[in-house]
Amino acid sequence: MGKHHYVAIMAGGIGSRFWPMSRTDFPKQFLDILNTGRTLIQGTYDRFAKFIPAENIYIVTSAQYRDLVIKQLPELSEDNILCEPSRKNTAPCVAYISYKLYQKDPAANLICAPADHIVTDIEGFKNVCENALHFTSHIKALVTLGIKPTHPNTGYGYIQFEQQPVTENVYKVKTFTEKPDKELAKTFLASGDFLWNAGIFVWQVKNIIKAFEKLLPEIHELFEQEKVNFNSNKEKESIERIYPQCVNISIDYGIMEKADNVYVIPSSFGWSDLGTWASAYENLEKDYLENAVAGNNVMVIDATKNVIHADNKKLVLLQGLDDFIVVDTKDVLLICKKDKEQTIKEYVAEVKRNKGDKYL
Amino acid sequence: MGKHHYVAIMAGGIGSRFWPMSRTDFPKQFLDILNTGRTLIQGTYDRFAKFIPAENIYIVTSAQYRDLVIKQLPELSEDNILCEPSRKNTAPCVAYISYKLYQKDPAANLICAPADHIVTDIEGFKNVCENALHFTSHIKALVTLGIKPTHPNTGYGYIQFEQQPVTENVYKVKTFTEKPDKELAKTFLASGDFLWNAGIFVWQVKNIIKAFEKLLPEIHELFEQEKVNFNSNKEKESIERIYPQCVNISIDYGIMEKADNVYVIPSSFGWSDLGTWASAYENLEKDYLENAVAGNNVMVIDATKNVIHADNKKLVLLQGLDDFIVVDTKDVLLICKKDKEQTIKEYVAEVKRNKGDKYL
Repeated sequence: MGKHHYVAIMAGGIGSRFWPMSRTDFPKQFLDILNTGRTLIQGTYDRFAKFIPAENIYIVTSAQYRDLVIKQLPELSEDNILCEPSRKNTAPCVAYISYKLYQKDPAANLICAPADHIVTDIEGFKNVCENALHFTSHIKALVTLGIKPTHPNTGYGYIQFEQQPVTENVYKVKTFTEKPDKELAKTFLASGDFLWNAGIFVWQVKNIIKAFEKLLPEIHELFEQEKVNFNSNKEKESIERIYPQCVNISIDYGIMEKADNVYVIPSSFGWSDLGTWASAYENLEKDYLENAVAGNNVMVIDATKNVIHADNKKLVLLQGLDDFIVVDTKDVLLICKKDKEQTIKEYVAEVKRNKGDKYL
Repeated sequence: MGKHHYVAIMAGGIGSRFWPMSRTDFPKQFLDILNTGRTLIQGTYDRFAKFIPAENIYIVTSAQYRDLVIKQLPELSEDNILCEPSRKNTAPCVAYISYKLYQKDPAANLICAPADHIVTDIEGFKNVCENALHFTSHIKALVTLGIKPTHPNTGYGYIQFEQQPVTENVYKVKTFTEKPDKELAKTFLASGDFLWNAGIFVWQVKNIIKAFEKLLPEIHELFEQEKVNFNSNKEKESIERIYPQCVNISIDYGIMEKADNVYVIPSSFGWSDLGTWASAYENLEKDYLENAVAGNNVMVIDATKNVIHADNKKLVLLQGLDDFIVVDTKDVLLICKKDKEQTIKEYVAEVKRNKGDKYL
């Protein structure tokens, strides 16, 4: 394991598309959505622990989730948990870990990855990451992992890449495209030169800092001013000064789409962002009626292709329902059509309007 | 109020067709299925208390439900709660109250009525009952109240009656027919000489005792032997001797269908036996999408004609469901098509096979 290899697992999201299973005070990344016995953040940690030194694994999360991280990852040093005082999207999150690491190890070579994705081919994932780390250790590059698309998914961003590799399996990125409509997604798939944007990035921190300086100079300024405090007992104070002044912007929009040194590694390691119940459904084990059932006490009669989540103690008897999402928690029951799950965020907003934060 | 007028409210059922709202240890008659603010047994008590002296109102129930009766009907003397040691259908239940009352008041004129029906026209109900009590006080008759049918219901028994009344609005019964199929029910309705069997009976106890003597002599024998103990501190012992020896048989099958002195009073007092969720649905208030919702915290989106029951504390968000029954309790969630509710009893049996009594 390279001593300059680091990973920042980004775990600050609230996972509202998995409501009511995912809750503001206990979001998706801390849940075992696929019934594997490990939560998503634990799975992500396990994946990186295979090739990143334990002391180089960092979690960037919201202060609110610090205790959950400590509880779910007892093997992690508490010093490796970075707490954001407010949600500012991914650019400030990446800046925080990068400027901090740079103070500590100017040669730090960093992977930034979401805590709530899944990967089924762990070995393949490791190989791609190590290939990326090798590339970024030599080249002043910002690398993103691109997933070879298997279907015209309209929920993902797409990356178009040059057809000639710059080195083995590394390609220059031409364009990023946000979630396309079905027709466009089909065209992308047919063309063969588009990949899904997995939101997993690899770079030397010195190079992402250069990118911040050029493309997000306000953020650069804020972190640059306070850098001497990082890795000291003044870090928390510094961060609390920086965050309220930071713009809320994604690393994709703020840097990746604008930088001229972005590369992609086309990959296939059984990836899913588990962004929706439909993608969870794809990855869940299903019974002979194609129901994906979580809960030891679920009885299904004349019902097919449902996703059902319930507490093990609760008896669920479900008859005559096809293609539905049924999620039963202690205080919320959601029943909605599987193809309406993109609107779960709207339902959550509606619940907020009607009931306040109580059920979020 | 006639001092010889009595009512026995039969409250020993387990209401399994309303599972999981109705539970073995807290069955339907003790629930406020229609959100009226009073449970079904309370509503039944209120109805009779308008024209039967309070001290003449009796509840016959299972020993298991004695405490529930005391709690829900605090105005009732505990001496007026008759506890059956086991479930033996309605004939032993009717025998118990009848032989007991006969010892106390040989002129007792008794209404036997289920605890879990509803009546919307309370005044009309009172008038019919008083008419029946008047008739049975003069004639050696077994009277049943017949409901003028409004649709070809296949869940009810039907009563065919002679076209000539024996006195004002009282008719001799020709035949009883158990739940008919749809076609037969339509024929019954068209013929005009069929009524629904409401299972509400009126007779002098001395006359029903004569009927037992003739038609169910084994039951008569058992109660006759022990009659001296009724209304004494030996009653409980006696009943515990009688019940294990009693056959399990309904009063309809054991007596009404065979006796030659059975009369019916055609009635219309907004009656429902609330035998199924569909009949509850008919009687529940509905929103503009025709959903019958119980629970303060239910949000319905693009969903129509559902029956939804949930605890007030539980948030239920329901989308895209039509014609379903959704009942959420602390430990059971039932989702099934409204037209499949006749099979709820089968589901309950299936639950019993798989999970034992825990969820019943």
